[in-house]
Amino acid sequence: MLLSKNYLFTEIEERVKKCGKKDIINLGIGDAVRPVPKKINRSYVNSAKQMGAKSTFKGYPPISGYQFIKEGVKKRYKRFGVSLSDEEIFISDGAKTDLYALLSLFSTSTALIHNPSYPAYADANLIYGNRIEFIKSCRQNCFLPKPCDLKENYGNGYLIYICSPDNPTGVVYDKNALKLWVDYALNTGSVIIFDSAYADYIRGDYPKSIFELKGAESCAVEVASLSKTANFTGVRCGFTVIKNQFTTDLDKLNNLFKRLKSATFNGVPFVSQKAGESALINVGECLKNTDYYLENAKMMRAFFNDKGIFAVGGENSPYLFFECPCRLKSFDFFDILLNKAGIVATPGVGFGSGGEGFMRISGFNFRKQITEAINRMDGLF
Amino acid sequence: MLLSKNYLFTEIEERVKKCGKKDIINLGIGDAVRPVPKKINRSYVNSAKQMGAKSTFKGYPPISGYQFIKEGVKKRYKRFGVSLSDEEIFISDGAKTDLYALLSLFSTSTALIHNPSYPAYADANLIYGNRIEFIKSCRQNCFLPKPCDLKENYGNGYLIYICSPDNPTGVVYDKNALKLWVDYALNTGSVIIFDSAYADYIRGDYPKSIFELKGAESCAVEVASLSKTANFTGVRCGFTVIKNQFTTDLDKLNNLFKRLKSATFNGVPFVSQKAGESALINVGECLKNTDYYLENAKMMRAFFNDKGIFAVGGENSPYLFFECPCRLKSFDFFDILLNKAGIVATPGVGFGSGGEGFMRISGFNFRKQITEAINRMDGLF
Repeated sequence: MLLSKNYLFTEIEERVKKCGKKDIINLGIGDAVRPVPKKINRSYVNSAKQMGAKSTFKGYPPISGYQFIKEGVKKRYKRFGVSLSDEEIFISDGAKTDLYALLSLFSTSTALIHNPSYPAYADANLIYGNRIEFIKSCRQNCFLPKPCDLKENYGNGYLIYICSPDNPTGVVYDKNALKLWVDYALNTGSVIIFDSAYADYIRGDYPKSIFELKGAESCAVEVASLSKTANFTGVRCGFTVIKNQFTTDLDKLNNLFKRLKSATFNGVPFVSQKAGESALINVGECLKNTDYYLENAKMMRAFFNDKGIFAVGGENSPYLFFECPCRLKSFDFFDILLNKAGIVATPGVGFGSGGEGFMRISGFNFRKQITEAINRMDGLF
Repeated sequence: MLLSKNYLFTEIEERVKKCGKKDIINLGIGDAVRPVPKKINRSYVNSAKQMGAKSTFKGYPPISGYQFIKEGVKKRYKRFGVSLSDEEIFISDGAKTDLYALLSLFSTSTALIHNPSYPAYADANLIYGNRIEFIKSCRQNCFLPKPCDLKENYGNGYLIYICSPDNPTGVVYDKNALKLWVDYALNTGSVIIFDSAYADYIRGDYPKSIFELKGAESCAVEVASLSKTANFTGVRCGFTVIKNQFTTDLDKLNNLFKRLKSATFNGVPFVSQKAGESALINVGECLKNTDYYLENAKMMRAFFNDKGIFAVGGENSPYLFFECPCRLKSFDFFDILLNKAGIVATPGVGFGSGGEGFMRISGFNFRKQITEAINRMDGLF
């Protein structure tokens, strides 16, 4: 398997540029459009001011993060019933960086990745030279593959990627299904890399952290981000959690990760961490923000239901995954949607061959644009 | 060769914590202490404000950086007589990150590293699983090893690390000596990874960029940082340059790097890039800042000269590398300096076995602390 020439979203950006159309509504990349919430932005601005004064200036940040933001992460996990200690928390500049950095930690070199899934999983493993096995995520298994969907047990254990709520499909694992994966990982010496970037969109009774599951502490790594919670896509702040119980022959896995990070990274800016702390504490502001995007997603979900178009997601996720009309292929429908309706959505096949015939559409835009997009689609479908 | 248990500066931090001494003067890690210069900080604060308003909010940054800061980088290089185009510039969150990321680009898997040198070079290569050859950097070759110092020509080419002005020794390569390395790289199919993090400390007639040398465009990658130029150690902004002329069998190297970055990184915060742009343009403010630290270094250099202690650096660099008195070993003298004088310097051996018997001391502190440190050393030596 070869790395595709362009990263998916670079490819789409280029196609949109080429089409030359004006008044395009972008529901593609899943980038935040609303500003950083008020209180959180106040922390951001104030800490930037501090960098300009002798008495409050901050130099190199601690490699794994400042204590103040770790306290915020601990409070967050307490809400899920998970208790964390300082050395289990790594403040990051977003999920993508750590998704790649983590690969240096494992001797396991076969990744088990949902097809379709967030393209950075497969890309990182290809760049790192790992082998990849795909597991079908499809209508038949409700886009929530389980260990029983595996054709065979792979001998040496996998790096199992799970994103819940999922990108691109927007579906969520419940506790029982997730437990099957934890048990499978424990039984096979596999590692779960759990991407919880969309956890704050969960409104139903689903786990927001893999560590709500017993046993996960010794086989899972959780990669989280504030990008979609507090419109931090341009602020760049997230966190990775590795519990003390996850040990290797050499040392605790979090000790190894700290050593790795200290040789390859110089920490997250003070101002991003100050904004991050504020986002972790000001839960109400973040809830208002995620509610807004969720409402957008629900409006689109209702539209697809009305039209009788098969769609999943959009209830505990900002994303919907819908079937292209007339059995069109993803990129063909992408072009129609772009040229006929001026709407950018993401071709499902960009997330893997299993996404062929589907599109991902996101609620990350203003209400006005969503309403307009629905009107335009109404004319098209 | 095994990765040491702790990263050098983590180790030192822990020793300092343990000693329990108060009133310690830290001339160890080389962290900026002065605030971000005024005009530059104004850009930082203003851009943080922009993140809180709907009309000026910025989401995901472009993977290789915003156009506005690339213009700043181009202006900088123009001052050295080097012209750059947009696709040759990659805005980074500092040099260390890209020093590691770059390793995925090369099939060459033997690094040629100065002994002593900045520990992240060897660490990154060890983590990546590369072979390392060390080249002696010592009194005999003025700490400026040349290709003729190599015992033998290695068949498949090296990843040659050059830091100039050097960390830890503070010496600088002149054009002639650097040209020898460029020619060597071209002749052997080697790659030069040129670390110019301290270029803004050069006051003499030395190259500030490897691209001032003809031929470098097709064999060198330059990794630069604003950390020491504008007190950005906590802001996190740097840049990497790969010229269009550097091609591989697959593609232009900068195209490959862009692809790699887009799969493993989500860009540098808008605010860091805005501050970075300002630092690249406000040359006067940065000059005032580096002059200050240089004056500190020169004061220490004069002190060592007076005492008849052998030292290099401190003239075009914030660092000095001095011989421990009484033929003491680095860590023994580290303990004496810490416990008897309350001064933290960095044991030379921490940068490699070739640094044994030496200490690195930095000008990164306030004038008052430097004067006091000199007084204390005067009592000790």
